[in-house]
Amino acid sequence: GLVHVKNPHLDSMEEDILYHLDLGTKTHNLPAMFGDIKFVCVGGSPTRMRAFAQLMQQELGLAGAGQEVLDICAGSDRYAMYRAGPVLSVSHGMGIPSISIMLHELIKLLHHARCRDVTMIRIGTSGGLGIEAGSVVITDTAVDSSFQPRFEQVVLGDVVVRSTELDKELAEELLACSRDTPGFPTLIGHTMCTYDFYEGQGRLDGALCSFSSEKKLQYLRRAYDAGVRNIEMESTAFAALCGMCGLKGES
Amino acid sequence: GLVHVKNPHLDSMEEDILYHLDLGTKTHNLPAMFGDIKFVCVGGSPTRMRAFAQLMQQELGLAGAGQEVLDICAGSDRYAMYRAGPVLSVSHGMGIPSISIMLHELIKLLHHARCRDVTMIRIGTSGGLGIEAGSVVITDTAVDSSFQPRFEQVVLGDVVVRSTELDKELAEELLACSRDTPGFPTLIGHTMCTYDFYEGQGRLDGALCSFSSEKKLQYLRRAYDAGVRNIEMESTAFAALCGMCGLKGES
Repeated sequence: GLVHVKNPHLDSMEEDILYHLDLGTKTHNLPAMFGDIKFVCVGGSPTRMRAFAQLMQQELGLAGAGQEVLDICAGSDRYAMYRAGPVLSVSHGMGIPSISIMLHELIKLLHHARCRDVTMIRIGTSGGLGIEAGSVVITDTAVDSSFQPRFEQVVLGDVVVRSTELDKELAEELLACSRDTPGFPTLIGHTMCTYDFYEGQGRLDGALCSFSSEKKLQYLRRAYDAGVRNIEMESTAFAALCGMCGLKGES
Repeated sequence: GLVHVKNPHLDSMEEDILYHLDLGTKTHNLPAMFGDIKFVCVGGSPTRMRAFAQLMQQELGLAGAGQEVLDICAGSDRYAMYRAGPVLSVSHGMGIPSISIMLHELIKLLHHARCRDVTMIRIGTSGGLGIEAGSVVITDTAVDSSFQPRFEQVVLGDVVVRSTELDKELAEELLACSRDTPGFPTLIGHTMCTYDFYEGQGRLDGALCSFSSEKKLQYLRRAYDAGVRNIEMESTAFAALCGMCGLKGES
């Protein structure tokens, strides 16, 4: 289906400027540029998302494979965006606020471009929990730092709670794909999303650390027992926004 | 005084890798590189922080003024860092999680480099509230989306509340400086920090918007009445970390 924006105000706007992407409905022909996009892959680092677009060009046997890819958002230094055939590869920086700004504007982009049946996948580094180093974790549900499947969003000062379930069918499909690429142990599990990298994820090497190594291990063990297999900093917001806007999402 | 890290584990570490800055205690001579730094200015955009370093080179009459400045963190695409004499100019991306990662590593850098009497200033774009467009707001206190002077940090799943007061003397000093640079209306006020740019700051043009223009204005009016004069996405975490680590901070 189509990508849903849930904002009645958008229809009455004469122009929509996707400020942080340096794109807009009056300055760019978004349906022509993006109407045939079917997959959007997002990740934190701009360099890696460029490398991913180049890999996609090769894997899909597209013209221009091996050559440089152009940053569609070159006019903004906030995010980078590359395309390879039906695949869009976009960076989102680190943390929920940063990915949220990008996703709001990306979802509007897909809406304005009248894209259909878009699958969105976040690919990124994360800290594994009780699993082999180098494993790929496919998220079934994103959970917060209390291991709950929810994203708490403050709207005009009030907390609104949103679901963070991801597409289970897509997760199984991705797991099936992993069987064809040996060398990467792959599993399905919960992904914990935190607001902080050092104190929030139990690291002992930040500028501040008020807990012992034992307390850290207790917390991580509780997370593991709750089904968490990796930790990162964007998945709950990603899952909530994909879910609300009718995008098939995976992380 | 010195920069305080509050982490007893650091002393027993053989090496400290400042991963997201691509610096480390074994790979770099941090005291030689940074020991004489007195001012650290941070802001979201890497391009702007480079321009700021170049401006500082000119303003301070340093050798190399007008030439390119080198990105000290060129090996990482997460943040950019430039220096101009005693001034360090560092980008932090968007949002509390992103600035927090950078500040943890920057504070450890200043500690390892044995810097003394460092003043830290965040300079960045923000949305003004009931003030003339283009105004400079000097923050006396950073407040959260409920207008409270606090930063709630989740440590191993538990919420810890931290103070967000900034250095009042430094704020007055900066205000005094502003009198010598006409053309920029400058004032002291509270700065509200949100986790979300669209729904969190009452914008009507995100992919999601569930409130009316009236509700938005009511919220912003309440913020104004509570003393808020601008809105951005990093100040509470910045204030809390500066305060805890003995840095004279302003935003």
